[in-house]
Amino acid sequence: MADAKELSGGSLLLAWQLKDKRVLIVGGGDVASGRLESVLVADALVTLVSPSERLHPLTRRLIDASDRITYRDRLFELSDLDGADMVLTAIDDVETSRAICAECRARRIPVNVADIPPSCDFYFGSQIRNGPLQVMISTNGRSPKLANIVRRRIEKSLPEHVGEAIEKVGELRSKLRERAPGVGGELGKRRMRWMVDVCTSWEMEDLALLDDDMMRKLLDDGWENNRVPKLEDVGGRPRRDAASSPLQVRAAVLTSLVGFLAGAACAAAVMLTRRR
Amino acid sequence: MADAKELSGGSLLLAWQLKDKRVLIVGGGDVASGRLESVLVADALVTLVSPSERLHPLTRRLIDASDRITYRDRLFELSDLDGADMVLTAIDDVETSRAICAECRARRIPVNVADIPPSCDFYFGSQIRNGPLQVMISTNGRSPKLANIVRRRIEKSLPEHVGEAIEKVGELRSKLRERAPGVGGELGKRRMRWMVDVCTSWEMEDLALLDDDMMRKLLDDGWENNRVPKLEDVGGRPRRDAASSPLQVRAAVLTSLVGFLAGAACAAAVMLTRRR
Repeated sequence: MADAKELSGGSLLLAWQLKDKRVLIVGGGDVASGRLESVLVADALVTLVSPSERLHPLTRRLIDASDRITYRDRLFELSDLDGADMVLTAIDDVETSRAICAECRARRIPVNVADIPPSCDFYFGSQIRNGPLQVMISTNGRSPKLANIVRRRIEKSLPEHVGEAIEKVGELRSKLRERAPGVGGELGKRRMRWMVDVCTSWEMEDLALLDDDMMRKLLDDGWENNRVPKLEDVGGRPRRDAASSPLQVRAAVLTSLVGFLAGAACAAAVMLTRRR
Repeated sequence: MADAKELSGGSLLLAWQLKDKRVLIVGGGDVASGRLESVLVADALVTLVSPSERLHPLTRRLIDASDRITYRDRLFELSDLDGADMVLTAIDDVETSRAICAECRARRIPVNVADIPPSCDFYFGSQIRNGPLQVMISTNGRSPKLANIVRRRIEKSLPEHVGEAIEKVGELRSKLRERAPGVGGELGKRRMRWMVDVCTSWEMEDLALLDDDMMRKLLDDGWENNRVPKLEDVGGRPRRDAASSPLQVRAAVLTSLVGFLAGAACAAAVMLTRRR
């Protein structure tokens, strides 16, 4: 644990739950389209208020494609706040933005006003999404550019197929819970231990290969006998093409080969010189 | 942009702002101590309610060390909710937990009840903190174990000194805003461009070396002349000890040396055999 003095200057990072919650977005431009995408990911019911001539093409496309968006082709009205569980504004009108914020605070509705930090109960960080995996990077306002650089580095470091692996492990967990139901207790602990064993003994890319058949075999042979079969044991075939001979291995083989040839050439040269 | 259909099943990841907000924590055990640490990081004013005999040593240590915690040595009472901006419970009593959640929702106070997902307005993901940098990893409930594995991989992939670099760039930005003040407009854009140039042309480990003197030189020579001097130009000395000869380089030298010796030995052996 860190020193109590060091505990400051940060935010509380959260995964807010919006399933079937009502989110009001005021504005339809570039920033609003990003907000819209973020709350749709979280299964929110959205009302978007903006005159149609100010809609960004991305915003318009999302409105057309999703049945979870109620679109109001006009400027903001106070009654738009009725029933909202969260409010996000992204308009150029600072005065209206501040008024919306004040009204939200009076009604205790969490609010974010783009570009006006004091009018925000929360910020959006730099984000990564890969299937069910979500990662947020925040520099707590110090440097959006470095947040971006860090995001790209993290993206590169993520194991291949990580999103699929997480999806499949989630399915396996549900199947296990159906097979051995109940909350807590000894069984709950055994379930958790077995899932941890599966996750730590299989490679991420192998977990991503799991299909219904393999999951059934994994539960029949593995869970029932309290062991963790290998991918091949449940009928899977590893895709070890690039992965089993990664760049570093190939580079090492090449360097030692070059060294070998250089060494042989030198020795031969030395000995030939001496022979004369 | 992703397909509208793919936009679901996630959470809205947020950096919640708690500076001088009042957070109520009900419970004093292991989980509560983690919550306490997270909200102290975010500069919250905390009230913690728990009979002292149930306090975890870590919780007790934080209570003793921080002047931002009001401690109530007793069980939860309804009046504890008065004035709370956020409520976190981590107690074994499911009935009380659910009652607290219901009351919070009636009062529109964001609430998290540990271990009872339907009673949570938000979840805590797997987190990394490195100075002002915070990273959250969420698998949206699919697999806490894989979240953990991904967290460790991300931790390893983070550039060395990344926290210090972000801190220093934050300071440089503030100094620049003092030197060239004003919101938006051409000046704002020039400020942003110059900061981006600094962040992209300097290595993370060099940014971390910036001190007050170097920042002043960077602004005098760089900002004023619209260019980005190098670390050495502002009086810095790169710490390229381990970095300029990273493990991979050393490994490559070693492999080629071994190859060279093996090649020389082989050639010598062949020629000696032939000579006889």
